[in-house]
Amino acid sequence: LAVSKPNNTETLTEEQIIALVGSVSDQKAPGLLKGIGDDAAVLEPGLGKACVTTDLLVEKIHFDLAYTSPGDLGFRAMAANLSDLGGMGAKPAFAFLSLGLPKSPTKDFVEQLLQGLNSLGREHGLVLAGGDTVRSCFVTLNLCLIGYCKGYEPVLRSTAKTGDAICVSGKLGGSRAGLHWLQKGGSPQDTKALKAIAAHLRPMPRVNLGMALAQKNLVNSMMDISDGLATDLARLCRSSLVSAKIRAKDIPMARTTKEIASQAGEDPLNWALTGGEDFELLFTCRSEKLAEIKKLAQRVEPGLAITQVGETQKGGGVFLELPQGETREISLTGFDHFKQEPS
Amino acid sequence: LAVSKPNNTETLTEEQIIALVGSVSDQKAPGLLKGIGDDAAVLEPGLGKACVTTDLLVEKIHFDLAYTSPGDLGFRAMAANLSDLGGMGAKPAFAFLSLGLPKSPTKDFVEQLLQGLNSLGREHGLVLAGGDTVRSCFVTLNLCLIGYCKGYEPVLRSTAKTGDAICVSGKLGGSRAGLHWLQKGGSPQDTKALKAIAAHLRPMPRVNLGMALAQKNLVNSMMDISDGLATDLARLCRSSLVSAKIRAKDIPMARTTKEIASQAGEDPLNWALTGGEDFELLFTCRSEKLAEIKKLAQRVEPGLAITQVGETQKGGGVFLELPQGETREISLTGFDHFKQEPS
Repeated sequence: LAVSKPNNTETLTEEQIIALVGSVSDQKAPGLLKGIGDDAAVLEPGLGKACVTTDLLVEKIHFDLAYTSPGDLGFRAMAANLSDLGGMGAKPAFAFLSLGLPKSPTKDFVEQLLQGLNSLGREHGLVLAGGDTVRSCFVTLNLCLIGYCKGYEPVLRSTAKTGDAICVSGKLGGSRAGLHWLQKGGSPQDTKALKAIAAHLRPMPRVNLGMALAQKNLVNSMMDISDGLATDLARLCRSSLVSAKIRAKDIPMARTTKEIASQAGEDPLNWALTGGEDFELLFTCRSEKLAEIKKLAQRVEPGLAITQVGETQKGGGVFLELPQGETREISLTGFDHFKQEPS
Repeated sequence: LAVSKPNNTETLTEEQIIALVGSVSDQKAPGLLKGIGDDAAVLEPGLGKACVTTDLLVEKIHFDLAYTSPGDLGFRAMAANLSDLGGMGAKPAFAFLSLGLPKSPTKDFVEQLLQGLNSLGREHGLVLAGGDTVRSCFVTLNLCLIGYCKGYEPVLRSTAKTGDAICVSGKLGGSRAGLHWLQKGGSPQDTKALKAIAAHLRPMPRVNLGMALAQKNLVNSMMDISDGLATDLARLCRSSLVSAKIRAKDIPMARTTKEIASQAGEDPLNWALTGGEDFELLFTCRSEKLAEIKKLAQRVEPGLAITQVGETQKGGGVFLELPQGETREISLTGFDHFKQEPS
């Protein structure tokens, strides 16, 4: 099929969109026997244990095109999915993209979305190997990623031991702060909010750190933080049959996050615990491994902090020690996609 | 997490939906090292060449809940995806379900959807191994399936040879006839439309036939028919660098399809060529293999007809010989999800 060259605001047909997707995908990747263009992609066997994850993003629920550019959207969708592979310690390999677009999508929109998605994917060795393109009332984006653990074991969330140090990478609450800033009509160029805006629109998944921790067998359990520390740590505890005690004063937050929260009259701790979409790693390890883990993190992601926020204990639930010394159970304060908003 | 037992019309939280999805999935399947419940599912290596396919279905575009029950919806989504594996000849193994549901989904809705989806999946050896559950304005459903070809080659659409017989399984146009019947308010119980309604709401993917043809190396090229014979055959020809000549009189259509079309003043041939969603197989083979193929089809899918509709030739494009003897090029009359509807 000869694809005509429309102007960038010309609308695309389905075949043109498929051709665009094909043009950003590398059909000669190792392990990929047949890429885009058939009923299914064909992958070589023997690439290692395969980790498969999928994520659905829907306009108006997960993003608002008023302050999310098509490039940001592609980037964020890819980051969210890569973060899941990072949480297993798997090496990203193949992506399958399902794209629902309203009638008459423009070339600009589709190209920028694919560019945002693919640039981050490629950075992590990922090849767009297949997908589906359909019409929908709202922009809808599903990614299914396959990564491999060759010669080492993926790290599960169900294998924490009691007495483990509970650690997180990076800072928490930044994505929520950036979202708040944008929702309140703050300028996306304002220098004092830049880091929070980037944390929301262009989060960096900790794939390299996750892989390194898994390969070196340094952690007992691991997952990514996508729904907030409170919810995700509760999931880890439930899977591992342990409880967690964490300290509010140790939860790492960026200065920008605190400033935006203070200006909004919000508690930044709440954003760190329940904001979600930080896409940092949450893991548990023997405390004697912490020094080696911090050194490793500096090597694979220079500048990335590793912070111990608490310890696992016998029992169940997540308990937060507040700065005033009081301890509260917070296992059930996480994010629920189906919760009724207060009216 | 203790899942409470709500009444069937009680609405579900995200954790309850995830628990429901988990309850229909088999966590002890061969090859599945870790199923639902972590950042990603973990699959054993060495299961064979993996075929991966993904399909996105969106409410109002691909289905209307006015005449599609939740069970039908789950069934159809699974059928559409299984059909892609059938088109490669792969043995279904793992499914990843992304489910977008409007606020306050009921237990009935979710259970019936999962039941429709999973019953057909299990029939074909498929295990629900992971997924994502989110809120969305419209019911949105993405399936990503992995199948394997162990010890044989998947069949591509790009390997037809000139002089091949072009064949289809089953009857064409039935899904479009059923949709027409339902859209016009016809009773879903009317016996004279039952077959067409079933073809639309509960299509049977030809997975067993596809696998058998691939394993016995009987066909040169294969794909499933999801967008209508005209579009899909044009894709096969483009991929294989051949042209196709097909005969209208040989295109298999059910009596019900012809009757509904006649009543509606429509041409059933048009429905067979462009209606889409029949989920039959389209394949090409040396004509001397046809007898063996028909025998094999009777063994793996008793009662399923195999019909030769034409031959491949040098060149490009799809040419249709009309009953009157005239020949028309029809390569470009297929279905485009982004085409503007006539207003």
